Amino acid sequence: MIKQLPGGYNGKILRVNLSDNGISVETIDELFCRKYLGGAGFVSYFLWKELKQGIDPLGADNKLILALGPVTGVSLPGSGRHCVGAKSPLTGGIAKSEVGEFWGSELKLAGYDAIIIEGRSAKPVYLWIHDGEASLRDASHLWGQKTKEAQQTIRTELEDKRVRVALIGPAGENLVRYACIMHGLFDAAGRGGLGAVMGSKNLKAIAVRGHQAPQIAEPERLKELRQWLLANMQLVHVFHEFGTGAPMEKWESTGNLPVRNFRDASFPGVKKISAVTVRDTIRIGMEACFGCPVRCKKTVKVEEPYPVDPAYGGPEYETLAALGSNCGIDNLKAIAKGNELCGAYSLDTISTGGVIAFAMECFENGLLSVKDTRGIELRFGNDEAMLKLIELIARREGIGELLAEGTARASQSIGGQAQEFAIQVKGLEAGMHEPRMKPGLGLGYMVNPHGADHCCNMHDTMYVTQEQMQALRPLGMLEPVPVGDIGPRKVALFKAVHLEQIVFDSLVLCAFLPYTFEQVADIVAAVTGWDTGVMEQLRVAERILTVARLYDIREGFTEADDTLPRRFFQSKTSAALDVKPLDPAKFEKAKSYYYTLMGWQARTGIPLPEKLEELDIT
Amino acid sequence: MIKQLPGGYNGKILRVNLSDNGISVETIDELFCRKYLGGAGFVSYFLWKELKQGIDPLGADNKLILALGPVTGVSLPGSGRHCVGAKSPLTGGIAKSEVGEFWGSELKLAGYDAIIIEGRSAKPVYLWIHDGEASLRDASHLWGQKTKEAQQTIRTELEDKRVRVALIGPAGENLVRYACIMHGLFDAAGRGGLGAVMGSKNLKAIAVRGHQAPQIAEPERLKELRQWLLANMQLVHVFHEFGTGAPMEKWESTGNLPVRNFRDASFPGVKKISAVTVRDTIRIGMEACFGCPVRCKKTVKVEEPYPVDPAYGGPEYETLAALGSNCGIDNLKAIAKGNELCGAYSLDTISTGGVIAFAMECFENGLLSVKDTRGIELRFGNDEAMLKLIELIARREGIGELLAEGTARASQSIGGQAQEFAIQVKGLEAGMHEPRMKPGLGLGYMVNPHGADHCCNMHDTMYVTQEQMQALRPLGMLEPVPVGDIGPRKVALFKAVHLEQIVFDSLVLCAFLPYTFEQVADIVAAVTGWDTGVMEQLRVAERILTVARLYDIREGFTEADDTLPRRFFQSKTSAALDVKPLDPAKFEKAKSYYYTLMGWQARTGIPLPEKLEELDIT
Repeated sequence: MIKQLPGGYNGKILRVNLSDNGISVETIDELFCRKYLGGAGFVSYFLWKELKQGIDPLGADNKLILALGPVTGVSLPGSGRHCVGAKSPLTGGIAKSEVGEFWGSELKLAGYDAIIIEGRSAKPVYLWIHDGEASLRDASHLWGQKTKEAQQTIRTELEDKRVRVALIGPAGENLVRYACIMHGLFDAAGRGGLGAVMGSKNLKAIAVRGHQAPQIAEPERLKELRQWLLANMQLVHVFHEFGTGAPMEKWESTGNLPVRNFRDASFPGVKKISAVTVRDTIRIGMEACFGCPVRCKKTVKVEEPYPVDPAYGGPEYETLAALGSNCGIDNLKAIAKGNELCGAYSLDTISTGGVIAFAMECFENGLLSVKDTRGIELRFGNDEAMLKLIELIARREGIGELLAEGTARASQSIGGQAQEFAIQVKGLEAGMHEPRMKPGLGLGYMVNPHGADHCCNMHDTMYVTQEQMQALRPLGMLEPVPVGDIGPRKVALFKAVHLEQIVFDSLVLCAFLPYTFEQVADIVAAVTGWDTGVMEQLRVAERILTVARLYDIREGFTEADDTLPRRFFQSKTSAALDVKPLDPAKFEKAKSYYYTLMGWQARTGIPLPEKLEELDIT
Repeated sequence: MIKQLPGGYNGKILRVNLSDNGISVETIDELFCRKYLGGAGFVSYFLWKELKQGIDPLGADNKLILALGPVTGVSLPGSGRHCVGAKSPLTGGIAKSEVGEFWGSELKLAGYDAIIIEGRSAKPVYLWIHDGEASLRDASHLWGQKTKEAQQTIRTELEDKRVRVALIGPAGENLVRYACIMHGLFDAAGRGGLGAVMGSKNLKAIAVRGHQAPQIAEPERLKELRQWLLANMQLVHVFHEFGTGAPMEKWESTGNLPVRNFRDASFPGVKKISAVTVRDTIRIGMEACFGCPVRCKKTVKVEEPYPVDPAYGGPEYETLAALGSNCGIDNLKAIAKGNELCGAYSLDTISTGGVIAFAMECFENGLLSVKDTRGIELRFGNDEAMLKLIELIARREGIGELLAEGTARASQSIGGQAQEFAIQVKGLEAGMHEPRMKPGLGLGYMVNPHGADHCCNMHDTMYVTQEQMQALRPLGMLEPVPVGDIGPRKVALFKAVHLEQIVFDSLVLCAFLPYTFEQVADIVAAVTGWDTGVMEQLRVAERILTVARLYDIREGFTEADDTLPRRFFQSKTSAALDVKPLDPAKFEKAKSYYYTLMGWQARTGIPLPEKLEELDIT
């Protein structure tokens, strides 16, 4: 018998219709929880079930889903996460993004498992959720405020400085298609333009406070898992010490670092911007998400030539590369400033860096001129230009109006060669990982329903040497798959890693935590009380991914959208390096075999009817 | 780095060429062990790699493989098993059969992981393996002896009554195509005619004695698993109390019991032959395999009207049904006698019962006459005829000459309607489970490379109610799959259960032990020291099954051989019951979807080249 409510869940979803200020609470049953887990699973399901085909992502018909998982807020390292999703204004397909901090755990304590935001408010509002009570409050006075100011104002008027706030800055309000949703000032639900969706709804913030922790089915079993992690902290020491980006110099030397819009092979200035240098120069501390001893989040402080506010944390690897090497910039202080600005305006640093790098390459090739930029010399390496562009984009001023649309749309507007400079898949700017060196990641960029999101293949982002590949043995690859390979073994490995990641994203659990897949299934069992295991969790992940694909298919995506930018099929070279191009024929074969392994039609990638029935997708 | 030798293995294979009395020892490396585990994995691999296409299964070119797994002989309940295989004289495809007792654990102590028997001896011999030393000894004096007598003679001449003996009786010597290999007098490597292969090589027995246990990588971890089992003995209580066959009355009442060659729906006499009645009447004790507290093996004793020797144990479920209800016989003492005779002659009780039931139906339909049977009234329910036929088959006398060929060949010889009475797949007589009530088992019968072996889908043999199906949740089926269903969810469930079973068969671990798949992976890790998990073990099982399929394909099998006897597509009815026929169109769809899930070509069932590359099958 399915019990009424498994451990880890509140069993409640808060539905808020901003068009009519309607607030209601819906219950979810255990079977639904077990089929879709939470987080990315809930997001995929609700978007697929509730959104009409062809709606405007920035219109009232879009819905913003913020979903916890059974693990969110539970006393376990890595559990301070949730997932946010909507129809993406950037891709037109499904968008979802996981985020840390304390907001998700606070919502769990406040009594909900998810929030579904519908409609569009006539005037700016924010949502206040407090121990099960939810109300909409006027946010006219907050509109236009940067995130730090807005968060402070909200906390002051709610008379509780421990209120957790998810919110947007001016970029979200101005519907920048890659605006993010900040959670606090460090942590972004970054990818896919979720902040623009929030802005389009006139929703400035969601403030949360709660006090009631959910039941855990087997606290002792969970304690053992926590203790295992604490006894094995050396496995996450590099994150504890540096956050992300410690091996940047090595990556540069091997061709793995994106340089000047993924055009160039080497970037000697990497030494000045790596996470090691961050630690040795501008870093003043490390912060943590809820319940996490890893403390992987940098804070930095800069006084000259411009102050960088420590409140916004410091640049992680994606930001160091996106605003740094990928823009040809090796001025660490400028990157730290750019990071602060993106946090203040609520801009995704990856897409922002990708768009600026794209614009710089257009400029250098005469596709944009100083007339377009109103005098800015938009060349690779111009750090002042990078900082200026962030402001322009956030405010949609000048060239920012064009670039706020994202590389895909901007490249179509500019036309010609510009489209070759748009390093994006399905409209999402690529993460800061080089498919020519990590073809497994390239396959992930290709087929991921959300676009070129590096999180779909954490294995390829983290394991880049044969020695590190040994760590993947438990996934069944007995002999290391050559790093540069994209044959059937790499395809199967990608499928396994991606499904495992989807389980992490649905629990929601941080992918940096080195739990084995067995331990992950054990965590689910300990929290919920289910007699679950790896095979069930794999099937849950298959279900969630297939639903996400169905969403995209309904929006008109086809196998032709599962492709990579032409640039990755060309080489990049320098005196020291010669990075070979990817082979398009091999990638077409890999794509087709991936479809086959997923139970999707080998040519079209459309899920077989039998697979839908098998996974009970209805 | 792959270590030299993982825990649980000796790293040695004994190769014996009977044609020239050549005995040699080969080493296996850790990667091979990790890729194929042992047991059924080693059997599949060696047959596929070493046998020439198209050889005579009863000729010198066939090879008999006896393979242990890393768990064989380890101190863990369920570990007293190994696997035997060869090209099947019954099917012409791959044959493999797992067996319990102490023989496998003794071979482990004697220093080997497997034995490969090649060639053909000019005269009867037996193989004697003693603490690493192996020699061939004359067996002329043993030829013609029943198993009890032969085992006793061997122990006497080796002057050690603890020697463990795998051996054949007269049925194996006479090349009955479904002769089994007895291990001791209770336990048979039963299916596929392995005893005939042994007989064709003039090999009477393999006697083993050893004293050196292999290293276990993590004894403490293994101890915990053992203790879990001991603390959860209630999960195997039914086996402990009854052996197999306790629910026979219930099965009869629901149509699950094979009656009169799978023709009829009900069999009121079941009360007289169920395992409950065995316990209450003729049972005198329970015996165990190596290291197992379950003690699931009956011994019975009968004095009148004929003595039944307790040395041969008692009839388990398959025998109770095969020699009982499926022959229309409800005389328990006759079944016990038949069980004794099959053990003494080394005959597979399932095929023997299947062949006799087939012959009875032929007789009742005028396809065989008293002229053919030399006066035997070969009607359903004639227990004396059943006992007589066992003797005739074992000696290939009279009608036994025809029936020793198995139902498939016999039905072709008889011709006409006889072929409809041959309840076999690929030549192997069906196990005593009713596909019309357990369509998942029907699919297993269809696609299993070894033929209609019920062990390929233990889930369908054990779980026959919706309530019991709940136990399959950890395999990812959240809502119970209707028992009668053969849609995509049932197909996926079969695939999962079959792969799990292959891991059990390769370790080699008893399928009655209620270890979860997570625990099984944990057992592998504890014994070997590998950082393995469920996903690796699933991939190992996929590899082993795909190699077995490749073997059959090389022998000319096609998707047309993946079929069921026509009878299962017809209904069976009685006053109390109406068992619906299977739907052939649904089974064709299920078969194709199964191929797809396995990474085999959807129409032909031929493994895709990409799948072979993915699984590193070379």
